[in-house]
Amino acid sequence: MGEKPWDGRFSEPTDKAVEAFTSSMAVDRHLYHYDIDGSIAHCRTLARAGVIAETEAEELAAGLEKVRQEISRGEVVFSDRLEDIHMHVEDRLAAHVGALARKLHTARSRNDQIALDARLYLKAETRGIIAQLRAFRQALVDLAEANMGVAMPGYTHLQRAQPVLFSHHAMAYYEMFTRDTSRFCDALERMDVMPLGSAALAGTTYRLDREYTARLLGFSKVSENSMDAVSDRDFMLEFMSAASICMTHLSRLSEELVLWSSAEFDFVDLPDAFCTGSSIMPQKKNPDIPELVRGKTGRVFGGLVNLLTLMKSLPLTYNRDMQEDKIPLMDAVDTLKACLDIYIRMTPNIRVKSGVTGRAAGRGFQNATDLADYLVSKGMAFREAHACVGKAVAWAMDCGKELHELSLSELQQFSGKIGEDVYDALSVEQMIDRRRVFGGTARENVAAAVKKAKQRLEAE
Amino acid sequence: MGEKPWDGRFSEPTDKAVEAFTSSMAVDRHLYHYDIDGSIAHCRTLARAGVIAETEAEELAAGLEKVRQEISRGEVVFSDRLEDIHMHVEDRLAAHVGALARKLHTARSRNDQIALDARLYLKAETRGIIAQLRAFRQALVDLAEANMGVAMPGYTHLQRAQPVLFSHHAMAYYEMFTRDTSRFCDALERMDVMPLGSAALAGTTYRLDREYTARLLGFSKVSENSMDAVSDRDFMLEFMSAASICMTHLSRLSEELVLWSSAEFDFVDLPDAFCTGSSIMPQKKNPDIPELVRGKTGRVFGGLVNLLTLMKSLPLTYNRDMQEDKIPLMDAVDTLKACLDIYIRMTPNIRVKSGVTGRAAGRGFQNATDLADYLVSKGMAFREAHACVGKAVAWAMDCGKELHELSLSELQQFSGKIGEDVYDALSVEQMIDRRRVFGGTARENVAAAVKKAKQRLEAE
Amino acid sequence: MGEKPWDGRFSEPTDKAVEAFTSSMAVDRHLYHYDIDGSIAHCRTLARAGVIAETEAEELAAGLEKVRQEISRGEVVFSDRLEDIHMHVEDRLAAHVGALARKLHTARSRNDQIALDARLYLKAETRGIIAQLRAFRQALVDLAEANMGVAMPGYTHLQRAQPVLFSHHAMAYYEMFTRDTSRFCDALERMDVMPLGSAALAGTTYRLDREYTARLLGFSKVSENSMDAVSDRDFMLEFMSAASICMTHLSRLSEELVLWSSAEFDFVDLPDAFCTGSSIMPQKKNPDIPELVRGKTGRVFGGLVNLLTLMKSLPLTYNRDMQEDKIPLMDAVDTLKACLDIYIRMTPNIRVKSGVTGRAAGRGFQNATDLADYLVSKGMAFREAHACVGKAVAWAMDCGKELHELSLSELQQFSGKIGEDVYDALSVEQMIDRRRVFGGTARENVAAAVKKAKQRLEAE
Amino acid sequence: MGEKPWDGRFSEPTDKAVEAFTSSMAVDRHLYHYDIDGSIAHCRTLARAGVIAETEAEELAAGLEKVRQEISRGEVVFSDRLEDIHMHVEDRLAAHVGALARKLHTARSRNDQIALDARLYLKAETRGIIAQLRAFRQALVDLAEANMGVAMPGYTHLQRAQPVLFSHHAMAYYEMFTRDTSRFCDALERMDVMPLGSAALAGTTYRLDREYTARLLGFSKVSENSMDAVSDRDFMLEFMSAASICMTHLSRLSEELVLWSSAEFDFVDLPDAFCTGSSIMPQKKNPDIPELVRGKTGRVFGGLVNLLTLMKSLPLTYNRDMQEDKIPLMDAVDTLKACLDIYIRMTPNIRVKSGVTGRAAGRGFQNATDLADYLVSKGMAFREAHACVGKAVAWAMDCGKELHELSLSELQQFSGKIGEDVYDALSVEQMIDRRRVFGGTARENVAAAVKKAKQRLEAE
Repeated sequence: MGEKPWDGRFSEPTDKAVEAFTSSMAVDRHLYHYDIDGSIAHCRTLARAGVIAETEAEELAAGLEKVRQEISRGEVVFSDRLEDIHMHVEDRLAAHVGALARKLHTARSRNDQIALDARLYLKAETRGIIAQLRAFRQALVDLAEANMGVAMPGYTHLQRAQPVLFSHHAMAYYEMFTRDTSRFCDALERMDVMPLGSAALAGTTYRLDREYTARLLGFSKVSENSMDAVSDRDFMLEFMSAASICMTHLSRLSEELVLWSSAEFDFVDLPDAFCTGSSIMPQKKNPDIPELVRGKTGRVFGGLVNLLTLMKSLPLTYNRDMQEDKIPLMDAVDTLKACLDIYIRMTPNIRVKSGVTGRAAGRGFQNATDLADYLVSKGMAFREAHACVGKAVAWAMDCGKELHELSLSELQQFSGKIGEDVYDALSVEQMIDRRRVFGGTARENVAAAVKKAKQRLEAE
Repeated sequence: MGEKPWDGRFSEPTDKAVEAFTSSMAVDRHLYHYDIDGSIAHCRTLARAGVIAETEAEELAAGLEKVRQEISRGEVVFSDRLEDIHMHVEDRLAAHVGALARKLHTARSRNDQIALDARLYLKAETRGIIAQLRAFRQALVDLAEANMGVAMPGYTHLQRAQPVLFSHHAMAYYEMFTRDTSRFCDALERMDVMPLGSAALAGTTYRLDREYTARLLGFSKVSENSMDAVSDRDFMLEFMSAASICMTHLSRLSEELVLWSSAEFDFVDLPDAFCTGSSIMPQKKNPDIPELVRGKTGRVFGGLVNLLTLMKSLPLTYNRDMQEDKIPLMDAVDTLKACLDIYIRMTPNIRVKSGVTGRAAGRGFQNATDLADYLVSKGMAFREAHACVGKAVAWAMDCGKELHELSLSELQQFSGKIGEDVYDALSVEQMIDRRRVFGGTARENVAAAVKKAKQRLEAE
Repeated sequence: MGEKPWDGRFSEPTDKAVEAFTSSMAVDRHLYHYDIDGSIAHCRTLARAGVIAETEAEELAAGLEKVRQEISRGEVVFSDRLEDIHMHVEDRLAAHVGALARKLHTARSRNDQIALDARLYLKAETRGIIAQLRAFRQALVDLAEANMGVAMPGYTHLQRAQPVLFSHHAMAYYEMFTRDTSRFCDALERMDVMPLGSAALAGTTYRLDREYTARLLGFSKVSENSMDAVSDRDFMLEFMSAASICMTHLSRLSEELVLWSSAEFDFVDLPDAFCTGSSIMPQKKNPDIPELVRGKTGRVFGGLVNLLTLMKSLPLTYNRDMQEDKIPLMDAVDTLKACLDIYIRMTPNIRVKSGVTGRAAGRGFQNATDLADYLVSKGMAFREAHACVGKAVAWAMDCGKELHELSLSELQQFSGKIGEDVYDALSVEQMIDRRRVFGGTARENVAAAVKKAKQRLEAE
Repeated sequence: MGEKPWDGRFSEPTDKAVEAFTSSMAVDRHLYHYDIDGSIAHCRTLARAGVIAETEAEELAAGLEKVRQEISRGEVVFSDRLEDIHMHVEDRLAAHVGALARKLHTARSRNDQIALDARLYLKAETRGIIAQLRAFRQALVDLAEANMGVAMPGYTHLQRAQPVLFSHHAMAYYEMFTRDTSRFCDALERMDVMPLGSAALAGTTYRLDREYTARLLGFSKVSENSMDAVSDRDFMLEFMSAASICMTHLSRLSEELVLWSSAEFDFVDLPDAFCTGSSIMPQKKNPDIPELVRGKTGRVFGGLVNLLTLMKSLPLTYNRDMQEDKIPLMDAVDTLKACLDIYIRMTPNIRVKSGVTGRAAGRGFQNATDLADYLVSKGMAFREAHACVGKAVAWAMDCGKELHELSLSELQQFSGKIGEDVYDALSVEQMIDRRRVFGGTARENVAAAVKKAKQRLEAE
């Protein structure tokens, strides 16, 4: 008998370059914990089915715990020759329990084993990401609360449009990351399916109690079809889709922080501890964190494209191509976690320059819409009011003034309906507070949204 | 006053090339139905809030219904000059109700209007796709049922591995499309959020009853934050992610049908009505449908990449880039619908060549695992049994025989544990029926899976 | 004999839904011109090989010219039943020349015919894009020349770093689009290969003079291998890669124009004719063109992903999947052309606000590096000078002053090496003009770069 | 003075988590060799410009060589605190030459330094890949030569279409990889541009002789514009596009090898040393190498998407996002190299089962086109001949015979033009050898193509 778990019919040994090329240890090593959990559950299920004795199961489980400790202490040297994590674990297990180790692989294939490991891994990581999202959403709500009342320009097309509360802007991100949470929760539910028992593809011939294995491993469901179970990677694709969408949100926030850190906007001050300088330009303080997070967005998108490309057109069931699935998956997991972690740390230290944002909120004709609304309230149709205000804006721009800096008689050139009460209508505070519709930027709405979010976060 | 809804402050007319470049009519035209639904709900909400009279609301609604009919009859010529569908509708509305039409755009922006239209469109299309998936899953279950008992080789690495039932293979696809259904349902829930009232970005100043608008339009929730509402395209990204995953399933099925239609496999006969021939090779009958579906997979992936790229790093709130969102979305919707439709039509006409698949199931040493299991049942450890069978396979290959074609004495060369009962163990029927673990390929399991699926489909 | 060019062996007619699903007329219609060119060259080659008579060739060519005119006048109704452009042309040809039309398809397959059409199409379009790039590069050089001497801040990390000439910034884009030109030229050379004669896949049995066909059609090479010729889509992939890279450049320029059009930067004024306003906010003037170009970037990326996905893992030779190739290709061609066209129109009308950019160039401690260089020129090591200036910047920020606004004694706190000549060293003009290294921003360099570019453009 | 090269103006130390998040050492470590080459050339250029003394330059160069040896011997511990490879080198340099080390960074920024390192790295790797492609093309030509005369079915739509030589099929891949070579050569030329002297963005104030630096480092050109030089990543994008196209070719070849290794095709035997077995199915011999190469295709596509996404919409000049560029680049380089290497090793060991392929070439009505051509040679129009043969095929299929197995009278049912000479026309050998058009599959053509390729490879 040869060295490999499969070389009975082979006449030539594997080429060393082939061993290196086909080894999955670069990523598999991160799965040992889950692989051992799965093996322990599997040997107990074998015992329950009478395939091995209860005492054998306990001896195997104890041996597997020893292997876990060896690996966690860094005592096991990984080798391409042993191909994957499953073989490494079994190899070390044999060192502890001898020939008994060979019984562990009964009623199991590496095909259902890796499907199990990947699901256990991703369930744990997804739960961790949901917890990170909770912490980050809390940080956003805290930021909104701490800056309640700070006005800033709201933008469309990166043009100043209407003044909003900074807190309203922050709470828009709270909404995005709350949707992300919901998507990860749904993905978690769909990945919570136990594949063991599917063996190579057709199901094992042993009458295993798969529900029992599922309970031991904390799964709520077992897979319904063995061929699907070993060839399905939907749970990875769905996770990576959710991660990609989450990264678009992080990239948007990052873009805004980069803009706001520029000399031109100057809306926020990022803490020194989260910035770096330039080796050549002594004055520079660069918003590296947002830039890097923005840059890492493509990495997650690329991983999704990688995995979609990989899975496209693969005939059933397992194909070796699928060994490549864990590289983009783990990279996406690690990237998203790192980005969330750094934002959780940085967000409480973002200082909003309320003087700057407040002044900016009052300039750039952002009260033009409100002047139009004022005219509508005096009986003009909206489209007409819009045109009338457009002319007033053009005139004011020529004078180098804002609308609220025009005199009443100047304003009345454009409509006789304008009265002294127009100045109140054009103040930043009133503009903000008039937007009391549900979801609007009025202080009372935003305060209510913050309160609701805090309650929700506490309840989660 | 100029021609555009916004040109009050402009001194130069828009360049004609710019009108063509910026027009969204190529895709917007498909939204008129939803745009009009939204406008009718909006004018009723304005009336309820006292912004316009009830009679005005009814006059507007009646005018909008007239516009709907004009467009549906193809009587409205779309023009780049009027930029988008909203302006076309308002333009025609003015023709019917005169100056009153100008009141419709009160308390609304094109930013929240397009967010509404896109959600209404996608909700309807997603529901349609879920219905298509139901029909397709039914067709797969019917195919499984009609071919119950047909054996075929199960493959890993495109190597014959173990015999399975064709129906088990078909039911693996049922599982995939059932997961797709579940993903689209979750996406549908998250897109079911009414954005109107957000106005341009900050919320309208009018106290609209947004829950009322939502009820009129069949939404179950209203958006929580106006800035998020006008700049969120998550619902599109999530739909396109789900569509991409669904296309991987269709591409895998298509790949298999192409393989199975080849002279080498010859497992299925696709109906003439779904194939084409060659203009140069008279003997050809090409599996065009599966090939085209496989080819369209990249189109949906590309659309997802398009939209992810588009949304990356956009600062809040609306940016004109987002006008490009509907092109990949509608293309993905249309592509997925067309692929599902053609598969719903073709699937009932797929003829499985059970003679060919059955013979193939009995060849290629697919009973090797079962010989190993047989040895394990006689007391050998699995890894040893595997190696022992490996040697038997190598020997049989040299003889040009299958394992079950070896005599007992030949077999006993490899292990004395082998007895006469081995031949039963190595028959295709027994191999299939021994895999009775839940999710396995045994006839009783597959029949139960089919029954369960039929009940579920009826209940949906 | 049936209706299709291939249905001799078929017993059922094609399903109507299948005809619609498999038809390529939506994109093929744009190829009629090239298809007819190819057919004319083909019938002349057939005559030269003695397969048909010279008079037959001329009759066919005359008939094909009639078909070209019919189609160009919109007189031919395209139908899904006739599948593709080749069949439509042949169908119309038969109307003009009768049974002779049937001889045209000798020694040819739709597989080599579509490969030819696609290459003819893409060669023409690529040449057009190279010409557009030339015009756009000219516009950039003109913009650089017209604004020679205008200072602005140069940015890294979107932080003001060192003052540069606006013209230097513009010429950076000239370099990018010059590289794009070079890439399209290389792609053009590789696509300039004549595939006709490959027939379905194995080569025609007729001894055609393929070099003659190539000369008639303006190709410089003929394909070397018939199987490669009908299954190769590299020329499309390479074009789309070049187009994607070109779009990254357009997206970067667009991002900058959006930033520069904001109230915060206020560096440029885009012409009214190229902007639109808001239907709700009368003051808005939105940079729609740059936003839309930026948004269209993802569309070209998505098309590239589409085509890469499509071609991945296709076995030789032609597969029907490849019918889907022209959709992303033509979309990318049209998108890139439209973006270049609109930029060629808009660029001459961009007005740089030199007062604003000049003031910005003098603020934000952009002379910090030059103060460090000044200290190095006085004998300090660079890393020390950098640290010393870092402290001076921190101190000046606390005072609310720029470095050049500090008094000499204030400056000397940080190093005794600083003398009166420091103020010259810190002026924007000197900072710019000191960067005389080849490729640097000094006026003389930039003027030389502009001159060189103009000469090159004239020579192209 | 602090620990960082830029912290003069900072009041807080960098957060440890930020150091880890912003460090680029994971990828930078692979660049040390190029970084040191660049620094040696830079210090010589500084000396030539009189900025430092010649003796200082030599002392620095000697110190840098010591650092190179330390790193190559693994004696340098990399740390996130020192951010990047440049700082590690300078840190170690200071240990060898003391304060002089601080002069090295004069007239240079990390922005132009990393642009240089990346170009040096990619030039070397691209040259290596071109050499690998040459070796692989040689292996394909050798395979073609070794199997000259072996017939096999040629496929379209994975349907047997016309017989071809296996060597013709192999030479189709030779053409693809020759085009790849040409693309990498063009990319190499465009990346051969020396950026040093651009400093941070505006050009250095020192009058460096950049052509001299270029000569020292083996570049043929210097960059024309400093802002472009530090913010350009086209050379990476172009490399990754070429790599993606090359991977589509490898994926197609891999797909075919997987198909040909199946029991159904059984066309090739891959060497045991390049295959693995199954841990559960003793009979399996899996084509892992082609499967893994096919699976790695998505990885390169994903990397391209990553980098395109990253670069999209970045304003000039350097942004920290760009630090993420090397991860997909190096991964694509390593992936492509590994795939080419394993194919170079495996290709000479592929054994074509000429008996199987030859038999397959004679079945499946692949002589149908030739029967049509035969009829054309007897005076029938091609489209008619096609239809006539279609009927003969249908009839023969019903009889379970091939066309050449029909008797003359059976054949004459379909056309009276058929004579005894038809059987020669229908033989595999004649079918192949009749395709003597340039690029066709006739033996003389393929032999000529092989000869031409060998001459070209020798000349390269």
